[in-house]
Amino acid sequence: MDQVQLKPGAERRVLQGHRWIFSNEVDGSLKAYRPGQWVDVVSSKGVPLGSGYINPHSLIAVRLAGPTGLRPDRAWLEERLRRALDYRERAYPGEKTYRLVYGESDGLPGLIVDRYEQVLVTQVTTAGMAALEPMVHQVLVDFFQPRALVVRNDTRARLLEGLSLEKRVSHGVVAEPVQVPLHGLSLTVDPLNGQKTGLFLDQRDNREALRRWVKDAEVLDLFCYQGTWSLVAAASGAQRVVGVDQSKEAVERAARDAAANGLDDRCRFHASEVLDFLKRAGRNAFDVVVLDPPAFAKTKGAVKNALRGYTDINRRALLALRPGGVLVSCSCSYHVSQSAFQQMLVRAAQAAGRMVRVLEVRGQALDHPVLAAMPETRYLKCFFLQVLER
Amino acid sequence: MDQVQLKPGAERRVLQGHRWIFSNEVDGSLKAYRPGQWVDVVSSKGVPLGSGYINPHSLIAVRLAGPTGLRPDRAWLEERLRRALDYRERAYPGEKTYRLVYGESDGLPGLIVDRYEQVLVTQVTTAGMAALEPMVHQVLVDFFQPRALVVRNDTRARLLEGLSLEKRVSHGVVAEPVQVPLHGLSLTVDPLNGQKTGLFLDQRDNREALRRWVKDAEVLDLFCYQGTWSLVAAASGAQRVVGVDQSKEAVERAARDAAANGLDDRCRFHASEVLDFLKRAGRNAFDVVVLDPPAFAKTKGAVKNALRGYTDINRRALLALRPGGVLVSCSCSYHVSQSAFQQMLVRAAQAAGRMVRVLEVRGQALDHPVLAAMPETRYLKCFFLQVLER
Repeated sequence: MDQVQLKPGAERRVLQGHRWIFSNEVDGSLKAYRPGQWVDVVSSKGVPLGSGYINPHSLIAVRLAGPTGLRPDRAWLEERLRRALDYRERAYPGEKTYRLVYGESDGLPGLIVDRYEQVLVTQVTTAGMAALEPMVHQVLVDFFQPRALVVRNDTRARLLEGLSLEKRVSHGVVAEPVQVPLHGLSLTVDPLNGQKTGLFLDQRDNREALRRWVKDAEVLDLFCYQGTWSLVAAASGAQRVVGVDQSKEAVERAARDAAANGLDDRCRFHASEVLDFLKRAGRNAFDVVVLDPPAFAKTKGAVKNALRGYTDINRRALLALRPGGVLVSCSCSYHVSQSAFQQMLVRAAQAAGRMVRVLEVRGQALDHPVLAAMPETRYLKCFFLQVLER
Repeated sequence: MDQVQLKPGAERRVLQGHRWIFSNEVDGSLKAYRPGQWVDVVSSKGVPLGSGYINPHSLIAVRLAGPTGLRPDRAWLEERLRRALDYRERAYPGEKTYRLVYGESDGLPGLIVDRYEQVLVTQVTTAGMAALEPMVHQVLVDFFQPRALVVRNDTRARLLEGLSLEKRVSHGVVAEPVQVPLHGLSLTVDPLNGQKTGLFLDQRDNREALRRWVKDAEVLDLFCYQGTWSLVAAASGAQRVVGVDQSKEAVERAARDAAANGLDDRCRFHASEVLDFLKRAGRNAFDVVVLDPPAFAKTKGAVKNALRGYTDINRRALLALRPGGVLVSCSCSYHVSQSAFQQMLVRAAQAAGRMVRVLEVRGQALDHPVLAAMPETRYLKCFFLQVLER
């Protein structure tokens, strides 16, 4: 059996371009299917809707990957990767560091591939993609002949699909962290042990957008991790940059990268709780504040508390700014919508007694495109705000 | 009498940072006030909320412009203009063409000032700002010593404020259209007779964002007006650009500007109804389509029909694209929200039978900032979409 029939009406979202079928939308039992099995999906009236893989144990029962009748062979996979690569070469001509594959948005549900020059990092999140993983690795090695291919199958989303967690080097050697050219800098990336796949590539375009606001500025970079925002600011004419992160290891790497890029004269990094640091920072102390925290809301139920946390920390960040100063305020919580985030910013400004204007509303970098009909592929919000003198 | 008291609860929006008081929020009669009179605003409990000017004949009764007690003198106006100028110099270093004042967002409600190098263009939309207009002109002349100051008081919004319509040169001479350097091009701008104040400055950053998608591309520029998107595309490596606008005069100017910039070998402009042209264009004919129409919805009541119009024309634009192609779809209708516009794009894609992904969601250029608490200051939507091969 390799066909799945939907309940009446359940085809509507798919026809708009959404790529998921939830388990309660399938007509009949899912028990007959194997995790990762490839199926064709039809509407209640038998209209073909496409093909993809199924997991009877997941709430997301089917992830569509192509037209009806498609079965995933090497030619299909090569074609998908070729298109993904073509797109990145248009988006970032001449560069070799980017997210090469962003799951559903590249027609490869359950697969993330990040490229750091000669090192590739893959992440598989579903049983269906896990079944194709050896072929994916083979095609990637043939395409890029990378120095190493690192497997970062350590995201907890895998547990929902009945997959175990693992980190390993599946091809070549990664002896030590890799030096990656990005933003005109040389950045240290640790594909095997860094957060995400080593670097936050999704903020790349937003960091470029920061450049124009930091000339001669005193910049505070909160949740700075390895200091990428800080280094971009320092390299773009900032007078002084202060980066803060609770991870001692991260800020030590930030400091080393600052030195390696000749920017250590104007960068200082502190291992500290961000909120504690911000409480001590005082008012009107900086010209630019970057506030790029980890996701405060990891589930829908956590949104209310998360918004309270975002309001408090944004209020403090606004107070730390001098009049005319710029706040770059981010949220990578998928569950916090852009409009909820904007409303939070208005509340934070009111609580700080400051008038703010929005200079830019930005999202994920170009190598993380969003399917128009699938809001689940969008998660990053990045507002550039300016504090006004009254 | 120079104080206005609000009804209970009406202060809430103002405390969040909104800058308008509607006539039904004022406690008591408005008859005692003169149009343009400067007033202090207090809540129902007497809490001071700020000062601004009133118009008893307008639905927007008061527009706040500063703290309580402020009266608009030359020093205040100079300070506002100085800040507006500082901000543009940060946003566009070294440039002299931009929107210098964008009303409420620059603390100068009812005033627009566009700068085209040595020519300034002002637009006053309210009785309150009209009372200050001679002082505004004097300060602008003293600041910039412009070759000319053009008054474009021809927007119909003035009629709601009891103001007449006029176009004139209030200082200096504008003998003929002006040559303005923008986007690395020399553009012809007609401050006295062009649409808006001569050029659509609000799309400036979006045109820059177009550059990366047009290399070797065949580009269709719909509602091209004087061809600014077209020329940017041609100058950024497009193989062939076709611009379409119903105005014969506009496309003739576009063609002349193409020639003046040495781009006429790859640009063609057609005076035609855009929808007719698009119907004839055929499928899979272009790599990039720019769809930047005039506002389809000029009132709230017109939104439903406008969305129907947007859906139809976006569907056709998507069909005119080759797989992998990019659609830049814009709406300057304030009444069409970003989420309504995005939903429309999903419907248009479905109707076209095409899967699309969103590469970027953009808005107004940096010189048109948005007050966080005042959605009325945001109007432009600009989506970069890519048509996917299935």
